[in-house]
Amino acid sequence: MASESFQPAPGKFSAVAGSDEDLSPTRLLADYVVSAQAEDLPDKVRREGLRTFLNWMGCAVGGSRHETMQIAIAALKPFSGPPQATVLGRAERFDILQTALLNGISSHIFDFDDTHLKTVIHPAGPVASAILALAEYQQTSGREFLNALVLGVETECRIGKAVYPAHYDVGWHITGTAGVFGAAAAAGRLLGLDAQRMVWALGLAATQPVGLREMFGTMTKSFHPGRAAQSGLTAALLAARGYTSSDSAIEAKRGWANVLSIRHDYTQITQGLGETYEILLNTYKPFACGIVIHPATDGCIQLRNQHALTAAAIDRIDLRVNPLVLELTGKRTPQTGLEGKFSVFHACAVAIVEGAAGERQFSDRAVRDPTIAALCDRITATVDANVPADAAGIDIALRDGRHLQIFVPHAIGSIERPMTDADLEAKFAGLADGILPAGRTRHLMDLCWKLEALTDAAEVARAAC
Amino acid sequence: MASESFQPAPGKFSAVAGSDEDLSPTRLLADYVVSAQAEDLPDKVRREGLRTFLNWMGCAVGGSRHETMQIAIAALKPFSGPPQATVLGRAERFDILQTALLNGISSHIFDFDDTHLKTVIHPAGPVASAILALAEYQQTSGREFLNALVLGVETECRIGKAVYPAHYDVGWHITGTAGVFGAAAAAGRLLGLDAQRMVWALGLAATQPVGLREMFGTMTKSFHPGRAAQSGLTAALLAARGYTSSDSAIEAKRGWANVLSIRHDYTQITQGLGETYEILLNTYKPFACGIVIHPATDGCIQLRNQHALTAAAIDRIDLRVNPLVLELTGKRTPQTGLEGKFSVFHACAVAIVEGAAGERQFSDRAVRDPTIAALCDRITATVDANVPADAAGIDIALRDGRHLQIFVPHAIGSIERPMTDADLEAKFAGLADGILPAGRTRHLMDLCWKLEALTDAAEVARAAC
Repeated sequence: MASESFQPAPGKFSAVAGSDEDLSPTRLLADYVVSAQAEDLPDKVRREGLRTFLNWMGCAVGGSRHETMQIAIAALKPFSGPPQATVLGRAERFDILQTALLNGISSHIFDFDDTHLKTVIHPAGPVASAILALAEYQQTSGREFLNALVLGVETECRIGKAVYPAHYDVGWHITGTAGVFGAAAAAGRLLGLDAQRMVWALGLAATQPVGLREMFGTMTKSFHPGRAAQSGLTAALLAARGYTSSDSAIEAKRGWANVLSIRHDYTQITQGLGETYEILLNTYKPFACGIVIHPATDGCIQLRNQHALTAAAIDRIDLRVNPLVLELTGKRTPQTGLEGKFSVFHACAVAIVEGAAGERQFSDRAVRDPTIAALCDRITATVDANVPADAAGIDIALRDGRHLQIFVPHAIGSIERPMTDADLEAKFAGLADGILPAGRTRHLMDLCWKLEALTDAAEVARAAC
Repeated sequence: MASESFQPAPGKFSAVAGSDEDLSPTRLLADYVVSAQAEDLPDKVRREGLRTFLNWMGCAVGGSRHETMQIAIAALKPFSGPPQATVLGRAERFDILQTALLNGISSHIFDFDDTHLKTVIHPAGPVASAILALAEYQQTSGREFLNALVLGVETECRIGKAVYPAHYDVGWHITGTAGVFGAAAAAGRLLGLDAQRMVWALGLAATQPVGLREMFGTMTKSFHPGRAAQSGLTAALLAARGYTSSDSAIEAKRGWANVLSIRHDYTQITQGLGETYEILLNTYKPFACGIVIHPATDGCIQLRNQHALTAAAIDRIDLRVNPLVLELTGKRTPQTGLEGKFSVFHACAVAIVEGAAGERQFSDRAVRDPTIAALCDRITATVDANVPADAAGIDIALRDGRHLQIFVPHAIGSIERPMTDADLEAKFAGLADGILPAGRTRHLMDLCWKLEALTDAAEVARAAC
């Protein structure tokens, strides 16, 4: 596709001055996705795309050996097609549709993936899982891959914005229900769909929403981004061959938005296409626990590092936190790693002792560690409605009588204080630890960062097994 | 599983006298599906199961060479697993998950499959497509197969009844959204799931509803029962390995019924389990056109057969019909086979000339046939609000001056006047004509009828290629 075919201009894809037909959000979105060129992505958008990709890769590798994956693979392996694509972090290869499912599951198992806070969509799972598998089947340059990733994220987040929060409030897991559009758009882009077929791909995606919030707390939650990836990829493959679908799947009277939400605002889809980018609002979780305890955890790690703190030096820790913290994560004596994720006390104790709060810090081993458990008992938390949800106050009383204090106004990982590239690498390394050899982990991260220079994006996938 | 483990008694599976926990429709349904025994099915239920199966088989064979199937196969074949199962009516074999999808698509292409009128669910597509593929992978007796078919139909129709019509009215294609439960239940039964895993299978089904009515009129409509079959089978396979899901997926606050419908009545799911059977209310379309023109078509065929009518003997035909007939099917001069389906005039003309109104009678060939087109021009229709939707009056004026009249109070194919087994065979033969050799068609129908005597239900599938 020649780059000349697309000259972005303010309002080019916007609905402001169009005819009635131009106002179709489905059509406008399809036109945008098939036309937007890699070279037109602003530098910061490309950069955030790489960060999104790297963070997703780390999560997928990290989840790859979890029981959820063992079960899914055991159940589905007998029905897989040719070994076309890589299950990240594992030796097995499956056909691209099953691989998209499995990598999507894997990347969400720890609930440690990225979050588009405006919609609470985890954007990378559905999109990256679909197109990385596809890139192993059909050669794709890293540059085109990154463009498709950004366009897929744009698609799902814009559709999500159009119905959030009503759609989420009723009980849909928006990562799956909107994510399937992102996967279809990104895969369709790599398949070179024309605008009509992209419209059909979005239609085939619309008719396959996946995910009830009722499934939270079970293995089926991580099934959602996986199935969204697989269904979106299926949609694009069918549309590429001319499988017909609705021409207005999003906005039709009995289309996706009306059926799955009581409210919608289509301008969220159509305004500023090619001008503003939702991926710039993507965030990455620094800690493998509920987001409400991130500020306190963050503050503990900061004080630890500033003062080379050890548990032995600490008499007690007093936290001042938003009321949600004790409501959601007030578990006093967690017995398992999973329970540890719901304990602000464990999170802070392990953060002091180990200087981190990754998946390994929320293992059965960690909650049973005597040093951590003992420190846990010396932590108290006071609720203060004046403390915002992304803030926390910490007072550490040392055995020598000194007090160390910090107030964290915005936790690391928030839009206001994003994780640095080094933070993302440390998170990645923690997730890959024990799954990939250290040298392989370094190589894989390097490949993620230099994705755009690769003539074959699949090289990244092959390096992750 | 020993038959002694299940002694059906009135109310055994009903919620009437249970504790709160017993009231869970998800759990009650799962308990029923894992326990109900083939030998407890009443004779008429078994018989209707066979009729449902035969009718579905004919539809799937009939649709197998359609462009929709060519496209779907071309798109998905490169990703299929081992050749485990038969695409009915074709030479190709795919893995069981893809086969379930493809046979489900095929069986719905002509919109000629069965209808559970209380819910407008087409029950066989999702269920039979899933379990026939599974039966080719895991040996299953015909008796167990029929039991699973009945239980799957029971599951989807009861869940459908619980939310119909509100759920359908908002825009869901209920054949896909409820059908996925039927496929999961039937496949889970054949996989021998225990009650807990059956609950999880239903949960995995609940989270994958497929089908917006917006897709009607496109190839994606027939994708719905196919995807429901494939997703339900996937749900059962995952649950069989212990993939966890919600324990109350249907009735939970953010479960399927609350998220996908504004009204629900769970007693439709729980009352009379093992006592009443929805499959007894299944109906089969005799004609490959909109149901509103079935009464007139039926009457024309009756007069033709009674009087050995030919077009040449007819001066004109006057119809008296419900207003819906001209509203929905008033096309005067159809140009294509598809348009013929929306022309009461063509339907009656071809019924007189060919004595049938199957898929072949709604082909481009048929609408362009000069004899049929000329007779079409001699038919008039008068709207009469006193004529019920399933009735029609016909007056045929012969060239010799005589008048032949009939009033059809209930069209063939209705609950009041079901198709006979011979009618079903004639329909089947019409669908299979040109796809299977006549001898093969006869053999295949015989296998369907004697399904319960087969030690291996897959024999039917293998005979259909």
